[in-house]
Amino acid sequence: MASRLARSVASGSASKRLCRDAAARRSLATAAASTAAYGSSSSMSSIFPTEPAMPTVLTSSIPGPQSKQASERIGTFQDNRAHGFVTDYQKSIGNWIVDADGNVLLDMFAQIASIAIGYNNPDLIALARTDEFITATMNRPALGSFPPTTWTEWVDTGLGTVKPRGLQQVFTAMCGSCANENAFKAAFMSYRARERGEQASFTPDELASCMRNQAPGSPDLSILSFSQAFHGRLFGSLSATRSKAIHKVDIPSFNWPSVPWPAVRYPLSEHARENADAERASLAMVEEAIVDSRKPGSPYGAVAALIVEPIQSEGGDNHASPSFFRGLRDVTKRHGVYMIVDEVQTGVGATGSFWAHDKWQLDTPADFVTFSKKMQAAGFYHNLDTRPTMAYRNYNTWMGDPTRTLQARQIIQTIRTHGLVEKTASVGSHIFRSLTSLFETAAGRGKVENLRGEDAGTFIAFDCTTPEVRDRLVMEMRREGVHLGGCGERAIRLRPMLVFEQGHADLFLEKMERVLKKL
Amino acid sequence: MASRLARSVASGSASKRLCRDAAARRSLATAAASTAAYGSSSSMSSIFPTEPAMPTVLTSSIPGPQSKQASERIGTFQDNRAHGFVTDYQKSIGNWIVDADGNVLLDMFAQIASIAIGYNNPDLIALARTDEFITATMNRPALGSFPPTTWTEWVDTGLGTVKPRGLQQVFTAMCGSCANENAFKAAFMSYRARERGEQASFTPDELASCMRNQAPGSPDLSILSFSQAFHGRLFGSLSATRSKAIHKVDIPSFNWPSVPWPAVRYPLSEHARENADAERASLAMVEEAIVDSRKPGSPYGAVAALIVEPIQSEGGDNHASPSFFRGLRDVTKRHGVYMIVDEVQTGVGATGSFWAHDKWQLDTPADFVTFSKKMQAAGFYHNLDTRPTMAYRNYNTWMGDPTRTLQARQIIQTIRTHGLVEKTASVGSHIFRSLTSLFETAAGRGKVENLRGEDAGTFIAFDCTTPEVRDRLVMEMRREGVHLGGCGERAIRLRPMLVFEQGHADLFLEKMERVLKKL
Repeated sequence: MASRLARSVASGSASKRLCRDAAARRSLATAAASTAAYGSSSSMSSIFPTEPAMPTVLTSSIPGPQSKQASERIGTFQDNRAHGFVTDYQKSIGNWIVDADGNVLLDMFAQIASIAIGYNNPDLIALARTDEFITATMNRPALGSFPPTTWTEWVDTGLGTVKPRGLQQVFTAMCGSCANENAFKAAFMSYRARERGEQASFTPDELASCMRNQAPGSPDLSILSFSQAFHGRLFGSLSATRSKAIHKVDIPSFNWPSVPWPAVRYPLSEHARENADAERASLAMVEEAIVDSRKPGSPYGAVAALIVEPIQSEGGDNHASPSFFRGLRDVTKRHGVYMIVDEVQTGVGATGSFWAHDKWQLDTPADFVTFSKKMQAAGFYHNLDTRPTMAYRNYNTWMGDPTRTLQARQIIQTIRTHGLVEKTASVGSHIFRSLTSLFETAAGRGKVENLRGEDAGTFIAFDCTTPEVRDRLVMEMRREGVHLGGCGERAIRLRPMLVFEQGHADLFLEKMERVLKKL
Repeated sequence: MASRLARSVASGSASKRLCRDAAARRSLATAAASTAAYGSSSSMSSIFPTEPAMPTVLTSSIPGPQSKQASERIGTFQDNRAHGFVTDYQKSIGNWIVDADGNVLLDMFAQIASIAIGYNNPDLIALARTDEFITATMNRPALGSFPPTTWTEWVDTGLGTVKPRGLQQVFTAMCGSCANENAFKAAFMSYRARERGEQASFTPDELASCMRNQAPGSPDLSILSFSQAFHGRLFGSLSATRSKAIHKVDIPSFNWPSVPWPAVRYPLSEHARENADAERASLAMVEEAIVDSRKPGSPYGAVAALIVEPIQSEGGDNHASPSFFRGLRDVTKRHGVYMIVDEVQTGVGATGSFWAHDKWQLDTPADFVTFSKKMQAAGFYHNLDTRPTMAYRNYNTWMGDPTRTLQARQIIQTIRTHGLVEKTASVGSHIFRSLTSLFETAAGRGKVENLRGEDAGTFIAFDCTTPEVRDRLVMEMRREGVHLGGCGERAIRLRPMLVFEQGHADLFLEKMERVLKKL
């Protein structure tokens, strides 16, 4: 690693001077604008030859004055208090985000993990110029009633090519929250249909009582989730979310149960035995919660489904072993509880497999796998047994967005063409090994800990000793030209795009070392 | 009307023969594809000169064989039981929808009232080709944290120009359901902040209990809605929806109250006195529900907000007078209940004013006005007093979609350029008057009744005597080349686009007369 770091530093200081020159900034803009032109350059990217080689930091802090001013103007008509900085998307390219002040940062947060193949990816720009895309975007159908003639082809060549093993159906939706909520609805409907028996229809009492929001028509069923889970922000999904109080306080909630996430220690491989105990304990609580929910007098309605993230992301990048997830599949199956795998943040390659749950090697597939973010399209995969019994039961006007279906198709194809999942696995291993070494040096000790994400591609995280150290690290790294995101109470989560290569990784590692030394 | 109808019929049969010719169909496709070219033709549209002059119905029923086959293929991976027909959006143009079999129908349903300015509108096609649009679409930001430098300008020149009177803030979201749910969240947070007092923050008990989905952190507050209301399909919005059992059965629901919609009779103007009584009765029940919800032992949590559609759409196109809505504003204000006006279906011009609630002449604006559908963008308008007390409280990854923000801006500008709201008011009056006459003839009597939507633009509806008659009327009209939508138990709702002109109206009226005679 050392020699690579040295090389980065050397080329870095030269580039930095160059980039600080206004003329160079203009040429960056031109290069970014003509992203369709593949060509050779000194870029560290094999996909974006016009990518800058190094960050440019022009302002003493970020957000700089232009960002602040633009944010204040937005603040007159919209909440601006969660603004990081205001962004020039026309100038951003590949792994590099350009802000309103002309700062050029290596983006390892990627719009909260939702950009897959780089800013202004030429494949996407080319897609946007096709008549097919323009028609799809500007004539937005009610997909559930008047689908386009091309719909089967779009799905077959896109979302259909990445169906999780064992799942054949796809329900399209608008965002992660509504993907999860529509999966909840499908689970509740299927659960009740099973209780009711194959041939039976709704009773008059069910049909009447649901109009008053009362049982039996509006049944007291529940979704079981884990402590620290994040599944969205709407009323159903928020009831399953347990990330932070600020996400939940003051909002009415369904009285649904939760179970502690296994208290594993990192690195997982070094604590295998105690972690297995922790996971067994959590599995036992899951089973107990399900069984108890069905007893008379339970404070919770019967658990119809369990929802789980392969890696709890917003809640702090909390991991568990494949055997834990196999255990979840076993216990849910044994008790007739649907299993919903929330791959909104983990899906689409960043963990080194297309779906994070691919690594679990489940004997029986999960019942639902939800997606959004890097897929740009949202929805869930499932099987026919969870298709509602009648039309219009899980339905809405748009039922997803063809714009994003086509974009997802291109993202999937670009990932495949460039082998980006495999690349991400390899770059992630490099980062993990390098951070392991770095954190053992004097620079890291007592500041960072609990590195996690071995064998999870670039889906890597670590804790800082306090929330304050975490926030300082994020700000210092930004000053060095690297844009990072936090999660949980005191964690940093790495969420680079799938076009993040070894050169980008080395630049990040060099900056981390420098900042850790300063902290 | 008679002479116009005769003219339509005459020109119709000629055009129909012409259009049945395959060569003519090909030329229609070419015309639709080159929608950017304004020119002169025999079209009845001043905006779409290449629009067909008459429907083409090539198959004995719709869906025809190609539609059915395409739908069956979709059915292998997705629920297809709500399919009307499969659509060729590339060939559709202006007010005309072209299906997989080449049938060309006058579209008066418009993707469940969500197409504003016609298929392949040249202004939208031109927008889609701009670099600004392409960048916005293919680099989707986390708008709440990294907004584009152009965001203020996009809003100022688009969504900001149609702010409902008295509202200054706009929250952007993904769809109608999530627009309503985010408004609910804002209302709950503001309600609790008001109870808590300006300076107070959350108590430790609130912060801890909300993580367990328990009061006081997850308060037992409620949203009051009306019988027959439709506000969406996610867990919060569905709890306020009271349209049909099939929308609600088997889905857990919040125990929120509802009040009967005023039992008015149509036409409103002929039953003014008895309708005023009905509206007073409903208002009294609203007040009673609010007051009761705050008493100890109430089965419902305290009502924090009331949500109401200006015209209940999905629930059957149920109207009430401006004075009823002024009464709702009075009672909600008096009791500190937020008023949410759901303009998801009524907004953006179809009722003859940009917002349906413009006609109420409120002294105090509503607290929230939600929008989606024809705006293509979704969200709500509000004021600073309902901005949450802290960052990240009403937040999500995307916070709306710049693609749709830009599309909304163009839709608004095109509406303004062509005076489409005023045109819709005038075309709507013509339709209303003509249907009034038609329904009084022998053809209409005993088949259709309760015509409504006087002074509501083209937002017109009527009941058929039974659900079966309604369904037959829809199918017969489709055979005649006019695509209509139902609502409620036995109603037809007219939902043409804003580019629906007098010529289209006359064609519709002629077909209505013919079909009513046959029924």
